[in-house]
Amino acid sequence: MTGKTLAEKLLSAKAGKDVRAGDYIEAQVDVAMAHDITGPLAFQTFDEVTGGEGEVFAPDRTVLTIDHHAPADGVQAANNHNAIREFAAKHGAHQYDIGDGICHQVLIEEGHVGPGDLVIGADSHSTTYGGIGAFGTGVGSSDLGTALATGELWFRVPETMRFVVEGDLADGVYAKDLILRFIGDVGFAGCTYMAAEYVGSTIEALPVHQRLVLANMAIEMGGKTGLVPADDRVARFLEAETGQSVDLPEAQHSDEDATFASVHEYQAEELAPQVSKPSNPENAVDVDEVLGTEIDQLFVGTCTNGRYEDISLVASVLEGETLAPGTRMVVVPASGSVYRKLLATGELATLTDAGAVVQAAGCGPCAGYHQGVLGDGDVCLATANRNFPGREGSMESSVYLASPATVAVSALYGEITDPREYDGLPRLDDHALAEVNA
Amino acid sequence: MTGKTLAEKLLSAKAGKDVRAGDYIEAQVDVAMAHDITGPLAFQTFDEVTGGEGEVFAPDRTVLTIDHHAPADGVQAANNHNAIREFAAKHGAHQYDIGDGICHQVLIEEGHVGPGDLVIGADSHSTTYGGIGAFGTGVGSSDLGTALATGELWFRVPETMRFVVEGDLADGVYAKDLILRFIGDVGFAGCTYMAAEYVGSTIEALPVHQRLVLANMAIEMGGKTGLVPADDRVARFLEAETGQSVDLPEAQHSDEDATFASVHEYQAEELAPQVSKPSNPENAVDVDEVLGTEIDQLFVGTCTNGRYEDISLVASVLEGETLAPGTRMVVVPASGSVYRKLLATGELATLTDAGAVVQAAGCGPCAGYHQGVLGDGDVCLATANRNFPGREGSMESSVYLASPATVAVSALYGEITDPREYDGLPRLDDHALAEVNA
Repeated sequence: MTGKTLAEKLLSAKAGKDVRAGDYIEAQVDVAMAHDITGPLAFQTFDEVTGGEGEVFAPDRTVLTIDHHAPADGVQAANNHNAIREFAAKHGAHQYDIGDGICHQVLIEEGHVGPGDLVIGADSHSTTYGGIGAFGTGVGSSDLGTALATGELWFRVPETMRFVVEGDLADGVYAKDLILRFIGDVGFAGCTYMAAEYVGSTIEALPVHQRLVLANMAIEMGGKTGLVPADDRVARFLEAETGQSVDLPEAQHSDEDATFASVHEYQAEELAPQVSKPSNPENAVDVDEVLGTEIDQLFVGTCTNGRYEDISLVASVLEGETLAPGTRMVVVPASGSVYRKLLATGELATLTDAGAVVQAAGCGPCAGYHQGVLGDGDVCLATANRNFPGREGSMESSVYLASPATVAVSALYGEITDPREYDGLPRLDDHALAEVNA
Repeated sequence: MTGKTLAEKLLSAKAGKDVRAGDYIEAQVDVAMAHDITGPLAFQTFDEVTGGEGEVFAPDRTVLTIDHHAPADGVQAANNHNAIREFAAKHGAHQYDIGDGICHQVLIEEGHVGPGDLVIGADSHSTTYGGIGAFGTGVGSSDLGTALATGELWFRVPETMRFVVEGDLADGVYAKDLILRFIGDVGFAGCTYMAAEYVGSTIEALPVHQRLVLANMAIEMGGKTGLVPADDRVARFLEAETGQSVDLPEAQHSDEDATFASVHEYQAEELAPQVSKPSNPENAVDVDEVLGTEIDQLFVGTCTNGRYEDISLVASVLEGETLAPGTRMVVVPASGSVYRKLLATGELATLTDAGAVVQAAGCGPCAGYHQGVLGDGDVCLATANRNFPGREGSMESSVYLASPATVAVSALYGEITDPREYDGLPRLDDHALAEVNA
């Protein structure tokens, strides 16, 4: 019999038996998460399943966040927030409130998730946890509600699509550019229900905050999860974030003779900064092809690129500068921790001095709810993950997706600009070093 | 013939003749203001009046702001923002964007308004300008649209209701407590279409940021405007804010033999901190009567009490403390300038360290649109100006109004608390001194 993929190994451990792609399994869930949109629906299912008297399978591994409509942008949102607070209090679950930040960022920062865990979240970007070697996947509210009661969920073990990247990324090119290129190459449904696995020397050299970007956007090509093999760097990162020691799981890599649905090989040096044109993440092109596209709004944030290193990079570009006339920039840190770090370092002041509008941590305008919704004809360049029609507001608006570097440099000119034009972008190596030294 | 009130003098100057309460006049408008809700409607009227080809009466004295739904909380809001931007660009009017702050604060900070001016704003709290001795009043969008074309508007000259306050306010008692008491005494319609005039040694000793509170909330008892006589302190304040020299108008005071609709006399020492209970500002009571009322949300901001001194006071109380468990605090500075000052002084960090959520400058949740809307059953203690049913969200929510000091001290306990319990509140004198030395 051939070897196993990392996904097969991770799910075998949770099923308590040897499983392979295509198998239907019941697996033990390590962590269950829901937020202010999906939580209240999940609680309804939970109450139906348990007759309204049940207990949560593991309060200490149940995490509820208030992030999508935070602070409340309407009465329904406010009522949902209260439902989150009440359920968490009743069951003793972990609960984060307005300003604490986006679920995926909070779960990682606060040490709720570790390598090897099976994490289900009632949010499509729950693939993010794969950036630290956990099997993270998004589920519907009713699946989550059931799992809250039982601690188990069924899965079809996914096939694996492998992305192999070797060599050094050029200055101005980041994980965001890699994942946009991957999505562009396989299409927005090209990896449907598969595990996307990211390996190779380029990936191994990526700091964890960059790996999270690859895992996060696996869903944008249909991925069931997105996996970067855990390594010592992940352990050091988590230890620095949480102050707790971290054990790496036995299952860290796919076997060399494992079966992959397909393997896609890249040479890092050849990759240019990428921009996904409206209105699909798969519309990824080299930045050259969209140079000069005029921009009304720049949006820096989201569970994809709202981390400290992302916003710090933007601040370093805007230091002593001002936004191009006629453009506006909305910055929404991914967590309260990120916000406070930007505050302490003076980078929040740098951003506001440049003309950016900084909001409390949360999902911001990513899904078009509030904090910078787009109007008819508005063009936005965003560090976000989706640009479907109407995603950030009007069906007549346009969203281009890019890395924080591309967004920052474009902000200086009011049009899409090649970040390689800008001399002095922080190097990925610098981030990696800072992370290791943290 | 008897003497004239300050309101009669100010409008006589703008009508170019001697006018008295009850007269209908055409007056020259000095400044016209509209924001992101009222502007687009005013532009429609402007286009109808001018046939779509007209010019604004005075671009340099026309100011358009984006504050109520800023950053955009929906597509309609975003489209309204674009309408503001386009009209301002077409006509060369002053325009402020997301994060710049609330219209009334911006117009004063940026020197668009001075003592003696006749200021019309398509916003009910345009009475605020009376805090610097301008005749400020709110008008409907169609009145504003017409005035944008002609530079004139008709008025009925208001009678004047005089509030005379003598003596020293106790520690923990502020202009907000005074105005809540006034509204409580005369009722929410008690001053309808009158000029509220605030005089006496207590008022003369108030720093300008406190005078603005009195003027701002004149509308909450129906006032057409709210006037604090301009004096050297106003001139120094404006010169410090704007860097421009300021001439005080000839009309600074009512004549002693002027006719007043009524005169209400207060002794400052006798006033306790006030709280207006749900759901009307006129429900003002001594804080003693509502002690212990449990609070879910604290809101610090608005054109009433979102100034630097207000938020700085809250920060000084929260320094090294944390919000009471189960409470949340939303802070929304009244302007970008206020935000940046709080950032530079470290007070923004103090607030966030204590657990407060700080948003970009604007109107915040005051009118129930976004940034902290209340759900069913939520109880909010706010530095705002209105607590009508549903004002900040659900019709089943409750809003109590109080001063920043009462809100800050209550935040430590999670229930309404007498600010005089807290030792070390900044004294009004300190603010006044800081202002004079600014």
